[in-house]
Amino acid sequence: MEYKITQMKNAFYAQSGGVTSVINTSAYGVISELSRLDKSINVFAGQNGIVGLLENNLYDLSKTKKDLSLLKDSPAGMFGSCRYKLPELTEKEFYEDLFKRLDQKSIRYFFYNGGNDSADTCLKVAEAAKDQGYELSAIAVPKTIDNDLAVTDNCPGFGSVAKYIATSSKEASLDIRSMCKTSTKVFILEVMGRHAGWIAASAELANSSEDTLVHKILLPEVQLNKDAFLDGIQNDVTNYGYSVVVASEGLKNNDGNLYAASDSKDSFGHTQLGGLAPKLAQLIHNELKLKYHWSVSDYLQRSARHLASKTDLDQAFAVGVHAVKLALSGETGVMPIIKRVSNNPYKWEIGTGDLKDIANLEKTLPKEYISECGFRITSEGKQYLSPLIQGENYPEFLNGVPKYEQLDLFLSD
Amino acid sequence: MEYKITQMKNAFYAQSGGVTSVINTSAYGVISELSRLDKSINVFAGQNGIVGLLENNLYDLSKTKKDLSLLKDSPAGMFGSCRYKLPELTEKEFYEDLFKRLDQKSIRYFFYNGGNDSADTCLKVAEAAKDQGYELSAIAVPKTIDNDLAVTDNCPGFGSVAKYIATSSKEASLDIRSMCKTSTKVFILEVMGRHAGWIAASAELANSSEDTLVHKILLPEVQLNKDAFLDGIQNDVTNYGYSVVVASEGLKNNDGNLYAASDSKDSFGHTQLGGLAPKLAQLIHNELKLKYHWSVSDYLQRSARHLASKTDLDQAFAVGVHAVKLALSGETGVMPIIKRVSNNPYKWEIGTGDLKDIANLEKTLPKEYISECGFRITSEGKQYLSPLIQGENYPEFLNGVPKYEQLDLFLSD
Repeated sequence: MEYKITQMKNAFYAQSGGVTSVINTSAYGVISELSRLDKSINVFAGQNGIVGLLENNLYDLSKTKKDLSLLKDSPAGMFGSCRYKLPELTEKEFYEDLFKRLDQKSIRYFFYNGGNDSADTCLKVAEAAKDQGYELSAIAVPKTIDNDLAVTDNCPGFGSVAKYIATSSKEASLDIRSMCKTSTKVFILEVMGRHAGWIAASAELANSSEDTLVHKILLPEVQLNKDAFLDGIQNDVTNYGYSVVVASEGLKNNDGNLYAASDSKDSFGHTQLGGLAPKLAQLIHNELKLKYHWSVSDYLQRSARHLASKTDLDQAFAVGVHAVKLALSGETGVMPIIKRVSNNPYKWEIGTGDLKDIANLEKTLPKEYISECGFRITSEGKQYLSPLIQGENYPEFLNGVPKYEQLDLFLSD
Repeated sequence: MEYKITQMKNAFYAQSGGVTSVINTSAYGVISELSRLDKSINVFAGQNGIVGLLENNLYDLSKTKKDLSLLKDSPAGMFGSCRYKLPELTEKEFYEDLFKRLDQKSIRYFFYNGGNDSADTCLKVAEAAKDQGYELSAIAVPKTIDNDLAVTDNCPGFGSVAKYIATSSKEASLDIRSMCKTSTKVFILEVMGRHAGWIAASAELANSSEDTLVHKILLPEVQLNKDAFLDGIQNDVTNYGYSVVVASEGLKNNDGNLYAASDSKDSFGHTQLGGLAPKLAQLIHNELKLKYHWSVSDYLQRSARHLASKTDLDQAFAVGVHAVKLALSGETGVMPIIKRVSNNPYKWEIGTGDLKDIANLEKTLPKEYISECGFRITSEGKQYLSPLIQGENYPEFLNGVPKYEQLDLFLSD
């Protein structure tokens, strides 16, 4: 089909998949850098990700009166996110329609801010555009609390969750330590992380050379050995008076099945998880007769902008800025990645990754980060994790709660 | 029996019941005020509350080398807490033994930092001391996240939990709002509060005149009307696209029984709660077929010193200081209370309450704080709650997590 020939080049930006406390910071990286480099570019933000494009619900950011910089301090997805799988490239009509919609707004830059599934979406759009001769730079902007994207050293969104889990584990551990003499002996914190244990692993950062506050970390990468686990809990209670367990929702039985499966699935066919902590508590209660408490942090962990990592915020902004540089230099089907230059002092820079090496892949915790017993993180693993949670950057508070001001958004005609 | 006649007057301080993120601040109030008023007073802290006294495990704080002011920034109970019910006053031998132990250390000031059950302990000690002619000022120092102590306007520990729940509810609500178009429609946050809904009520502080972010608050004071609840959820999803529910663990069925009872009990015979959120999620899923997420904040909410309320910290310190003034002026069987002088601007002062009016009683949410529908908090209720969460006071961070330095504690001979 024929597309408009126009000098005007506008941009599309959208958020996809589970949101984070810093994804809006990446949005601001994209939007502010576009504005800095070329004021003529208008940005249309998809309402609820790519779904906004398909349903003709695009926010015209030129109509927004508030200062866009407030994006930096507000968690979750300001424009709405989605879980939506694009059809295969063979569905040519679908993509023709998609490009017609982009062409109507003279959109030549396409920024898709998400994780593995979103990289798949962005790659399909890049490839379909090439196939159909639609001029488009399609750039993925990395975001996932799961930290499981390939090629990049780490993922924006993860560092803040890691800081939240390390902090919360430490606080809860001091709590149960106070109570264990006459009351609760075991505390279980369930954290996110479907197939990769990065979030659970971050609880190791609560431990120091002086104090072990988290005693067992249960990873999706290590099938649960119930006997070793229960023996370990009993030993912790004997040695420390209590035991703190941080468990990834994706923990598996020794038959490889999820320890806490429910029958609900999302639009990608992934099983909806949750409910691991009470199951583990029941196991411990039945087998060891110990008093327990448990917590499921769920959305709290990934939306906790009040405890965001400064490093994470810096990197979230940087990948947004770099995505624009890639787009304006004519790249497509790529994603800015974070490269670790050194650990001590921690230095990082932004590079470029090919979406073919990223889409739909999952990077799990390497063996050398997992202790021999399978329940702890090695010092090598801690060295990897520690820099990502450094620094604090508190939001503005109003009336005792974070302000988290929202943008005034207007749909385009 | 005969007790020592001595000029020396020492003090006992102990922590009891569920700990909070500011109970150590009250400890510092007691200890620093004792030192300021009379340097000759030595403080013995009970290891794990009154149990430390009964088992002869007392920390001699004169042996501690670190600066005691670090108590102000560390959550949970630095000296260990307990759930331990003292026998009736008719058990004279028990109390004789208790006073013999106190007398050995020349302890004439007894500070017991806790909630309703702890007020009961302190009152028993005060009355037994009178009965048996043991010179003792027994003062309760208020502490409970449940905010359910009678006589006092509010309780140290509560304001910080309220700030945590209001903030976390707001953050999680922004998260689900981002996702609701194509994914999760209902989020349920389970919070503590056994018989009083103060903590759940504090989620109302996430709402403002511009934005309703928390749609349903389930209180122990209002028996669950399932039909109205489910209709309300469906309406929220229709009107807002999603629904956020904050539910107190003590929620009751319309037969008056706990909605989520387990069969485990603590040493006071209270049922151990938890597991309400997944039960509500199941109800919503079964009846409305809506996709849900749920979280149980458990220990995380009450140990979150990283998000403590400055007002709460100030009051926790003040009740500790005032407890010393009461003790040194010869009072016994009393507790410092917080009195609200005005709402706008918020002003408070410390008064004195009689433990007979406090021990074992529970102050629940008054009717005028609960909206007519039973699922929200009135503006009168918000006016009560709001001042208690004002102000931030962040702990020092080290390596990306709060430092929470622990005291070097040594048992006395």
